[in-house]
Amino acid sequence: MTDSIVPKPSGAIPDRSLYERRESGVRSYARAMPRQFGKAEGVWMHDTQGGRYLDFLSGCSTLNYGHNHPILKQALLDYIAADGIAHGLDLHTDAKEDFLATFEDVILRPRELDYRAMFTGPTGTNAVEAAIKLARKVTGREMVIAFTNGFHGMTLGALACTGNAAKRGGAGVPLSHVSHEPYDGYYGPDVDTADLLAQRLSDPSSGLDAPAAILVETVQGEGGLNAASPEWLRAIARIARAHGALLIVDDIQAGCGRTGGFFSFEGMGFTPDIVTMAKSLSGMGLPFALTLFRPELDQWSPGEHNGTFRGNNHAFVTSAAALRHFWSGGAFQADVARRAALLEDRLQAIAAEYGFEVRGRGMMRGVNVGSGELAASVTAACFAEGLIIETSGAHDEVIKVLAPLVIDDAVLATGLDILETKIREAMTTDYAVAAE
Amino acid sequence: MTDSIVPKPSGAIPDRSLYERRESGVRSYARAMPRQFGKAEGVWMHDTQGGRYLDFLSGCSTLNYGHNHPILKQALLDYIAADGIAHGLDLHTDAKEDFLATFEDVILRPRELDYRAMFTGPTGTNAVEAAIKLARKVTGREMVIAFTNGFHGMTLGALACTGNAAKRGGAGVPLSHVSHEPYDGYYGPDVDTADLLAQRLSDPSSGLDAPAAILVETVQGEGGLNAASPEWLRAIARIARAHGALLIVDDIQAGCGRTGGFFSFEGMGFTPDIVTMAKSLSGMGLPFALTLFRPELDQWSPGEHNGTFRGNNHAFVTSAAALRHFWSGGAFQADVARRAALLEDRLQAIAAEYGFEVRGRGMMRGVNVGSGELAASVTAACFAEGLIIETSGAHDEVIKVLAPLVIDDAVLATGLDILETKIREAMTTDYAVAAE
Amino acid sequence: MTDSIVPKPSGAIPDRSLYERRESGVRSYARAMPRQFGKAEGVWMHDTQGGRYLDFLSGCSTLNYGHNHPILKQALLDYIAADGIAHGLDLHTDAKEDFLATFEDVILRPRELDYRAMFTGPTGTNAVEAAIKLARKVTGREMVIAFTNGFHGMTLGALACTGNAAKRGGAGVPLSHVSHEPYDGYYGPDVDTADLLAQRLSDPSSGLDAPAAILVETVQGEGGLNAASPEWLRAIARIARAHGALLIVDDIQAGCGRTGGFFSFEGMGFTPDIVTMAKSLSGMGLPFALTLFRPELDQWSPGEHNGTFRGNNHAFVTSAAALRHFWSGGAFQADVARRAALLEDRLQAIAAEYGFEVRGRGMMRGVNVGSGELAASVTAACFAEGLIIETSGAHDEVIKVLAPLVIDDAVLATGLDILETKIREAMTTDYAVAAE
Amino acid sequence: MTDSIVPKPSGAIPDRSLYERRESGVRSYARAMPRQFGKAEGVWMHDTQGGRYLDFLSGCSTLNYGHNHPILKQALLDYIAADGIAHGLDLHTDAKEDFLATFEDVILRPRELDYRAMFTGPTGTNAVEAAIKLARKVTGREMVIAFTNGFHGMTLGALACTGNAAKRGGAGVPLSHVSHEPYDGYYGPDVDTADLLAQRLSDPSSGLDAPAAILVETVQGEGGLNAASPEWLRAIARIARAHGALLIVDDIQAGCGRTGGFFSFEGMGFTPDIVTMAKSLSGMGLPFALTLFRPELDQWSPGEHNGTFRGNNHAFVTSAAALRHFWSGGAFQADVARRAALLEDRLQAIAAEYGFEVRGRGMMRGVNVGSGELAASVTAACFAEGLIIETSGAHDEVIKVLAPLVIDDAVLATGLDILETKIREAMTTDYAVAAE
Repeated sequence: MTDSIVPKPSGAIPDRSLYERRESGVRSYARAMPRQFGKAEGVWMHDTQGGRYLDFLSGCSTLNYGHNHPILKQALLDYIAADGIAHGLDLHTDAKEDFLATFEDVILRPRELDYRAMFTGPTGTNAVEAAIKLARKVTGREMVIAFTNGFHGMTLGALACTGNAAKRGGAGVPLSHVSHEPYDGYYGPDVDTADLLAQRLSDPSSGLDAPAAILVETVQGEGGLNAASPEWLRAIARIARAHGALLIVDDIQAGCGRTGGFFSFEGMGFTPDIVTMAKSLSGMGLPFALTLFRPELDQWSPGEHNGTFRGNNHAFVTSAAALRHFWSGGAFQADVARRAALLEDRLQAIAAEYGFEVRGRGMMRGVNVGSGELAASVTAACFAEGLIIETSGAHDEVIKVLAPLVIDDAVLATGLDILETKIREAMTTDYAVAAE
Repeated sequence: MTDSIVPKPSGAIPDRSLYERRESGVRSYARAMPRQFGKAEGVWMHDTQGGRYLDFLSGCSTLNYGHNHPILKQALLDYIAADGIAHGLDLHTDAKEDFLATFEDVILRPRELDYRAMFTGPTGTNAVEAAIKLARKVTGREMVIAFTNGFHGMTLGALACTGNAAKRGGAGVPLSHVSHEPYDGYYGPDVDTADLLAQRLSDPSSGLDAPAAILVETVQGEGGLNAASPEWLRAIARIARAHGALLIVDDIQAGCGRTGGFFSFEGMGFTPDIVTMAKSLSGMGLPFALTLFRPELDQWSPGEHNGTFRGNNHAFVTSAAALRHFWSGGAFQADVARRAALLEDRLQAIAAEYGFEVRGRGMMRGVNVGSGELAASVTAACFAEGLIIETSGAHDEVIKVLAPLVIDDAVLATGLDILETKIREAMTTDYAVAAE
Repeated sequence: MTDSIVPKPSGAIPDRSLYERRESGVRSYARAMPRQFGKAEGVWMHDTQGGRYLDFLSGCSTLNYGHNHPILKQALLDYIAADGIAHGLDLHTDAKEDFLATFEDVILRPRELDYRAMFTGPTGTNAVEAAIKLARKVTGREMVIAFTNGFHGMTLGALACTGNAAKRGGAGVPLSHVSHEPYDGYYGPDVDTADLLAQRLSDPSSGLDAPAAILVETVQGEGGLNAASPEWLRAIARIARAHGALLIVDDIQAGCGRTGGFFSFEGMGFTPDIVTMAKSLSGMGLPFALTLFRPELDQWSPGEHNGTFRGNNHAFVTSAAALRHFWSGGAFQADVARRAALLEDRLQAIAAEYGFEVRGRGMMRGVNVGSGELAASVTAACFAEGLIIETSGAHDEVIKVLAPLVIDDAVLATGLDILETKIREAMTTDYAVAAE
Repeated sequence: MTDSIVPKPSGAIPDRSLYERRESGVRSYARAMPRQFGKAEGVWMHDTQGGRYLDFLSGCSTLNYGHNHPILKQALLDYIAADGIAHGLDLHTDAKEDFLATFEDVILRPRELDYRAMFTGPTGTNAVEAAIKLARKVTGREMVIAFTNGFHGMTLGALACTGNAAKRGGAGVPLSHVSHEPYDGYYGPDVDTADLLAQRLSDPSSGLDAPAAILVETVQGEGGLNAASPEWLRAIARIARAHGALLIVDDIQAGCGRTGGFFSFEGMGFTPDIVTMAKSLSGMGLPFALTLFRPELDQWSPGEHNGTFRGNNHAFVTSAAALRHFWSGGAFQADVARRAALLEDRLQAIAAEYGFEVRGRGMMRGVNVGSGELAASVTAACFAEGLIIETSGAHDEVIKVLAPLVIDDAVLATGLDILETKIREAMTTDYAVAAE
């Protein structure tokens, strides 16, 4: 194993008094990873004291192509150097045109999808707000069905769709007009939760009002890497259609190749009415969000949903470059599929040893170790070795591997070696002792 | 007058079929200004057919320092070229540290302000959502007082605070937990609306619940360039304190020098509990938002309000560069004050001629021409001459001048010449005729 | 003055342990008037220890014809003795037919009113809930405008329309879909609050959503005996019509002769779309409520709003008897008008002496003594003399005189003598001393 | 069979023009039973044209002791004749004292229950509103869990707890702060819906907020006579306690002996925190409602929930008489139990013949005939024979037998004979033919 594929953490924690004085205590990742980072390229992040970290978090799937990918970076440098429009509200720009044309050519046409793009404020939560607004407008209904463990954002409309009690509690007002229904597998393998939903929607006395939309993630990122089966998703799509509701797939985390295809629902036999995208859409981590919908649903009045930063032109540039580079042919997707299989094999082996459960799909994978305490202890030990890795799930009990999709196989293996070692150590020391 | 300070519009409207096929009809500015723009520098935008446009809109106050300011641009190019962190969730980075340190040194200390910064999702609406969440959490109350003609964003929590009926209608659900009270001057000069508010809040039978916060713009941008008087704002601040509510100043549009100081409330004799910023904060039009609050209010749990793109590192870089360049001494502010006086004089002269009313403060100015139809006709005529200028107000009846703060005096005069001419033409032809 | 017109209070407070053990502490009147009452006739209530009390409260206008009026009582005794239907859901009964026919003949036809009657659950709050439900259904809008100091009931829909903060606080959830606007005179005599409302409703950026209904009391009973002027009420009616809202007059307390006519709005030059009635409608204090509306508004589906006790047949019987006896000709109304003038003269004289303000209209009158403490001290002193009298208003600062409309002039004078004396004593002892 | 136990319907439908002109179309029962009724005693109702009807509806369980029971009737006649207080707000009266003392002696003490009584507005919906208000106040939480097919009333707070879509639609505003969970057996016999609820409440990411209360009927009257098992109810009680929620049993329809004991939950091994009662509580069909709760929960402020007709004194009189007469010893309850067994046997025999399902418990029984159309045809045919009987359930598919509890066995048999015959006729003619 060459040095170049081994993380080298730095031990020292730099002075944090400026942050403590001037940055809100709402910060979270900075607590578990108390270093200061300066630069990053590919799968590596560098701190200011010489440390090098392997990134198995990828900005929560925002950096699917790694940090500062050279092709994207060069495209952005060229654009800025040429005084390309940085901010143009929703005016037509060369960068927007290039993005739209590339998105049509590279993404929509090959998949025979006919969507219109709405550039919302450049955050995922804004894309979700726009999606549910549109569904409510088009259907004239108010209630949205979301799912247990779903995560859709932190502004009030999207937060109402989010399941997490701690996040919800931050609202300070009741979160209304949303009903959370059990996700696939929520009541165990023997209960088909799509059937439960269908029964309640068909019952005029169930108390569940007719929904404007069903909002679903195909794989729940924050909720613990729960992957819905294609059968269940098709059933949900049928239920939506049968009850006059629009099907919204929130593809913010699972899309852009993370679970295999550009859209997470490709090849599953259904087409959402509305799709939300963000995170890796810009390809370089720039704020960018998109709400896609069938043209017939484009019933917005001009400016009915707007925002100062809708249409981030820098992101148009990097996103178009990424689409062209990674998605023009099938090579990238095939590469990701192969790598995802390697990842799954390794995780299954680890899980089998301890009776853990592997979760997720594609390169959006996790291991449910059964306890948030154990998971936190493992990820902290990994970070001490230079591996950036995080948890998710209702009790933070799932260690999630969200490596850049472009990671070299050997580097992936190195990271997984660290993870495996730290799980083993945790299981053989603290927890084994604790169990005695 | 040299050529270099005269706009040169291009006449041709480029093919729009791609946009019509693939971009949502929600776009608005692109309709009134049907060109395609490629690059921009300073006060100028360039279309793809050789046209050059003088920008009196500045991305609705997002480009106070003009497009692609060379110092900011170079800082960003250097950062990207060096593989600076583009996306790091809320991790500590060199760029964030530099921003925080500069913000403290250049902005907070000289003004004797003690705020903590929360980097919300990089949109103004998100900063507002965080502000009202925090106010609700800290006070344990649910109701927020906002004002007639206020604009605070389009996600559900911020939209509830927004007055505009068309925007509100897009919600598709009732907008709750907010009461809109009359802004300064709403009922004319003889009614002190702060008194009205104080009376209702002091009356246990008024039906107005005890508020968590009073959310106010010192100058209402979208609402028609209504500027509240310092006396009224102080009264509102006193009312907030007396009733246990937090005072939130939404400085997203009026801040960053637009109305004079870095904060719009400087020198007015009160200090908000919470301040929201966005738009020109990055200095270069990059998505960036900030919620500032007194340290005692920093009662967030870690991650209680989060978001993928919170802490846009590119924006940290350009923002820190802008703070240093423009705000380190008093020269820029003095320059803006001088230029604002020029602007006011010209607008007052125009207004006096036709009995119009000048609105606003500093470089956030408008002329209420009394009719949305007239205003639209004037701004369309201006655009045909190469001047980008827009309207606001409940009936779009206010022509607003939001030129970059760095505009050369002669160029400002050129733009105002166009505006004056187009108003005169409108008044002497269509409207004069219509009035007969 | 004969003995028969002088109250004779009993001093002893009976054992209350049963109540303390078994009745909720939510009771209120029983605290200020700690006697146990056994029987009552006309204007007199009798306690179980020989005391006799003059009733200037009349069940908060529920006993406009006094207690157990002999004609109503006999009608009810005959009906029960003959096994008349006591409970029949909404089935047609002889008692209902008689009520409807009498209401049509005696009330509607002479006033040229064309209303349909909906027998809601027999409480005022239920009549209000039905009224606002219907307005929302017919208009397809959600927001209702109610007024400062308005009182409309305690169930969640009606409570949202009620202004009192203590009552509102009992909801335990935010009260939504209602905006409280200033009532007539709320900002003093120089501000026309109807103009303020019209301005906000005409402004598409005021944040005040288009209302389904405007809900108003012509005289606010619980809110402090505030009487709106006919001019203001007509303006409100015009505003409602101009903005597509239904005008609902809540006549629960001010109707049934309390302010003069059967309806409180008679002769004012406008006709409400919907009227709610309860309190004195049964004439004998039996639970009974009614929502009246123009026939075109009768868009209910069968059973869409129902309730077990809708259509209280005992109340049909006493109500029909009361309508025939009191409202068939003009004698009763003339008598009430004459007596109301006597009442007003006496109260004006008292008020003039101390700089107090007389409130209300007809026999719904009060004196604002400026302080809840003073008012409570006066009413307690009155009760100790055998006069049952209560307060209202945001600070309970208004002593209200709600004597039965049938009260003998001499008895009315006796009660007012007590009130006058107790006010004088309060002003010359405690408060005068306190003021030194 | 003697004439005295056979119904004698009258054929003629009286003129309805008065009702059509003056009564709202919201009436429902009057449509299916288009006669005009004049008097009633025991199990019989008499129309004005000589018809006599056997009442298997009992005002939806409001007349458990039959119409105008002679003992209750005499008590009321005596009270009125003696000028007993009819209306006294919440003042202490002899009638209230007698009711409270009797309720304590006859109901609470023998059952070792310690409840305080709150006399709400005299409708069931008001009792429910008070119950959920109190639960929200005591717990500081906002969300209430109610169940599929639950019915709790028509005012906005109670309606939010009601499952029926048509009733809910009447609200005209979204119904918030309530989540409807599946009732016992909702997903068939193999799914324990209490387990499902427990899982969601224990999951901090389920999106189901911590509840203030769980509101449940032990047998769902309007929802289709669904009877929850004691095991399920105990599980719900445990879940409520475990999650800090109050358990509210809505005993408005199932209480007062309808399902056996005075309270429907007697002998089931749990004690609700709050109980709502109405319907048969007065014993004679007079409006009366009661919310009972543990003394520790009595955290109301005086007057925090009030209402003009709270404490209906006529109802106190008849209710106390009913408690003494029917509930002082065990004879009545034993008689009801015996009669309920007869009823069940007959219904089971009918159901067995056609594959129908018997629903309910005690004398609150129904037969699910699988189709609302069939059920309506049967009940219409019964009415034509003089049997008043109605349907319930999500699709009105359950024919319900709610005979007075005091019905003579032979008369019960006569009514069931009619029902059996009409079911047979329906099955052998229309439906058999339709099925060919």
